[in-house]
Amino acid sequence: MDIQHYMQTLGRQARAASRLMAAASTEAKNHALTAIAARIRSRAPALLEANARDLEQARADGLDAAMLDRLTLSAKGIESMAAGLEQIASLPDPVGEISNVKRRPSGIQVGHMRVPLGVIGIIYEARPNVTADAAGLCIKSGNAAILRGGKEALHCNQAIAECVREGLQEAGLPAAGVQVVDTTDRAVVGALITAPEFVDVIVPRGGKGLIERISREARVPVIKHLDGNCHVYLDDEADAAKAVPIVENSKTQRYGTCNTAETLLVARSRAAELLPAVGAMLAARGVEMRACAESLAVLQQARITGAKIVAARESDWSEEYLAPIIAVKIVAGLDEAIDHINSWSSQHTESIVSENYTKAMRFLREVDSASVMVNASTRFADGFEYGLGAEIGISTDKIHARGPVGLEGLTSQKWIVFGNGEIRT
Amino acid sequence: MDIQHYMQTLGRQARAASRLMAAASTEAKNHALTAIAARIRSRAPALLEANARDLEQARADGLDAAMLDRLTLSAKGIESMAAGLEQIASLPDPVGEISNVKRRPSGIQVGHMRVPLGVIGIIYEARPNVTADAAGLCIKSGNAAILRGGKEALHCNQAIAECVREGLQEAGLPAAGVQVVDTTDRAVVGALITAPEFVDVIVPRGGKGLIERISREARVPVIKHLDGNCHVYLDDEADAAKAVPIVENSKTQRYGTCNTAETLLVARSRAAELLPAVGAMLAARGVEMRACAESLAVLQQARITGAKIVAARESDWSEEYLAPIIAVKIVAGLDEAIDHINSWSSQHTESIVSENYTKAMRFLREVDSASVMVNASTRFADGFEYGLGAEIGISTDKIHARGPVGLEGLTSQKWIVFGNGEIRT
Repeated sequence: MDIQHYMQTLGRQARAASRLMAAASTEAKNHALTAIAARIRSRAPALLEANARDLEQARADGLDAAMLDRLTLSAKGIESMAAGLEQIASLPDPVGEISNVKRRPSGIQVGHMRVPLGVIGIIYEARPNVTADAAGLCIKSGNAAILRGGKEALHCNQAIAECVREGLQEAGLPAAGVQVVDTTDRAVVGALITAPEFVDVIVPRGGKGLIERISREARVPVIKHLDGNCHVYLDDEADAAKAVPIVENSKTQRYGTCNTAETLLVARSRAAELLPAVGAMLAARGVEMRACAESLAVLQQARITGAKIVAARESDWSEEYLAPIIAVKIVAGLDEAIDHINSWSSQHTESIVSENYTKAMRFLREVDSASVMVNASTRFADGFEYGLGAEIGISTDKIHARGPVGLEGLTSQKWIVFGNGEIRT
Repeated sequence: MDIQHYMQTLGRQARAASRLMAAASTEAKNHALTAIAARIRSRAPALLEANARDLEQARADGLDAAMLDRLTLSAKGIESMAAGLEQIASLPDPVGEISNVKRRPSGIQVGHMRVPLGVIGIIYEARPNVTADAAGLCIKSGNAAILRGGKEALHCNQAIAECVREGLQEAGLPAAGVQVVDTTDRAVVGALITAPEFVDVIVPRGGKGLIERISREARVPVIKHLDGNCHVYLDDEADAAKAVPIVENSKTQRYGTCNTAETLLVARSRAAELLPAVGAMLAARGVEMRACAESLAVLQQARITGAKIVAARESDWSEEYLAPIIAVKIVAGLDEAIDHINSWSSQHTESIVSENYTKAMRFLREVDSASVMVNASTRFADGFEYGLGAEIGISTDKIHARGPVGLEGLTSQKWIVFGNGEIRT
């Protein structure tokens, strides 16, 4: 197959469909979402069968257990895809929302209108649920989508794509509103990310390697999420009763998520008191501590039973462990904590534990990360917890959208002018 | 000079300064702006002398009249630079603004805080006034800036840079908050636009060639402004008393600006009535009309004295004339007008003239341009007219900022969480 020609066909169809998607009524979009959900439910046996074919091939190709796990679709997974689409249907429609209208001295009234971005390209790994999820978010936000999932999920993705196409058509929307790439040729990715005439923004979802490669090679804006090296800082004026549960939840609630804390900073004046308590909790949870020289001494002196404490190396300050490991460092106070975070963090999420108003407000303002918190677990950095209803990813970029990206992040605002014959003098 | 080493020094200094700029108080930033303005005023003789040296060299190098004109700094130009900085000082400070705080079921309160982007790289042609203007906008928005102006303005830019540095220092802000590149080596541009570790966003200001080259080669997000192929559409229900002045103002108030109309669309049902009136006005202004076959016939039949009317070619639909020329096309009605605009426009600014509410609202929603207007001149698409107070450019991109970009466009919003010890369950 000629990939350039294939991509141009897809691109032209997406561009044409995007105009109809942008103009679609909320009712039509919600109709499509519930129709897709209904098809996904009623075709559960066919989806499971398609998934079984993918799994068989993947096993034959020797994929590792983690990849097979992500590729596997269960009956429960199918139900949760359908429920997810219905949940997106229940969210407010962001498109067309007019805000900030102000009358100007010239007589015109100027404001904003929220509009879709156009065509969104989503590149992801072999996780069939992303196909339904991404399609749903793009439909509701009035965008056309080109989805390119991992080749290992091809059969299952095509079965889901069929449900999406039919649902769009049932609602009177263009079938090309969501196109799922049906070739496994890797050149498709290269073509997709270098075609600004057809694609307005690329959202890569997957491992750091995938995202770095796409960011490097893209000629289209990318909403990207690299790693989550999140920090909790226990300030001089931390409430000990809040400090231990916040560190526990931030580090140990789940080890593999991007909003999990990877580094603990402790103010020197409280280290002797707080570190033994935090260290005992972490040891009980089986979390290895990689400690700076000073915190190492404090932790060793505390003689915590079963604790695994080793000396940190400089590389620990930037590492995203995604594992029961945490870096620990004693800092002089707020200034050093902010400096350390702004130097080493991946700018995802950071939290201060403090009862001091001025220091809390300084932390909020001066820490340059997508989510900055006071007295709360970093695990809250999440589209659902923030009330977005759904999320397509968590951006660590600084322009357009920072942090959890929901429907609004898939739109932008244009200027609108209500005039009455005004001309400029 | 080793350009890579030079750029890394500049970049590291900018990154360090950006943290101090982000944390700076409104008072300090305004102090810097007024201190810079005072220096620019008091050093007018030295600035004029530096400019004279640049002009002498530029003439020797054979620069054309338009470039010499842009390079020339007059006493009035110096006063307007100073006044511009004072005007920026008088604008509200966008940094630190907290909005949309909502309590979530978990107990946390989630909201947005507006924050600087970090380090902004501005690349522009030989226009010394841009140096002061861009420095002012970056300072007020809490960003650090690296400015790279056209090499022909080197002496004048360095003299302005000196005022900026001293003004920053007088206000207790880092001198490296604004760095003006002091080498004419063109490799600096390449280094600047490919260093995401030092530069968060690039704003190119200048001709289409410069902007296209930068967009193509940048590895850093670009807020760009390509061309302005703006449309006025006279609808079936246009008020003739509004139509003629709006076309006149949109096309003829200034020919060389990006918000000038370049194409006129007229609904077929009104062509015989409106085109002769509009044509007479355009002919009186000396504007050449490049007309589609149908409008050509209508205009020729009107026998307008002195009118220059020629047949349009397809290339006319996409051209930005920046001259007393306008393309004219008759369309069936609103649908064809929207189709034509969405196919050919540069997505800058479009205006409908109509008394019909539903058609006006459809035009606002379905036309995919940065500014969409009803019954108003396209010339209003401007930062000052929109109330931004100042503008760094007009974006024709779809993500981050669309249309006139003021202080807000040089910031983004991060998430902030006010907690009280909450953890995620």
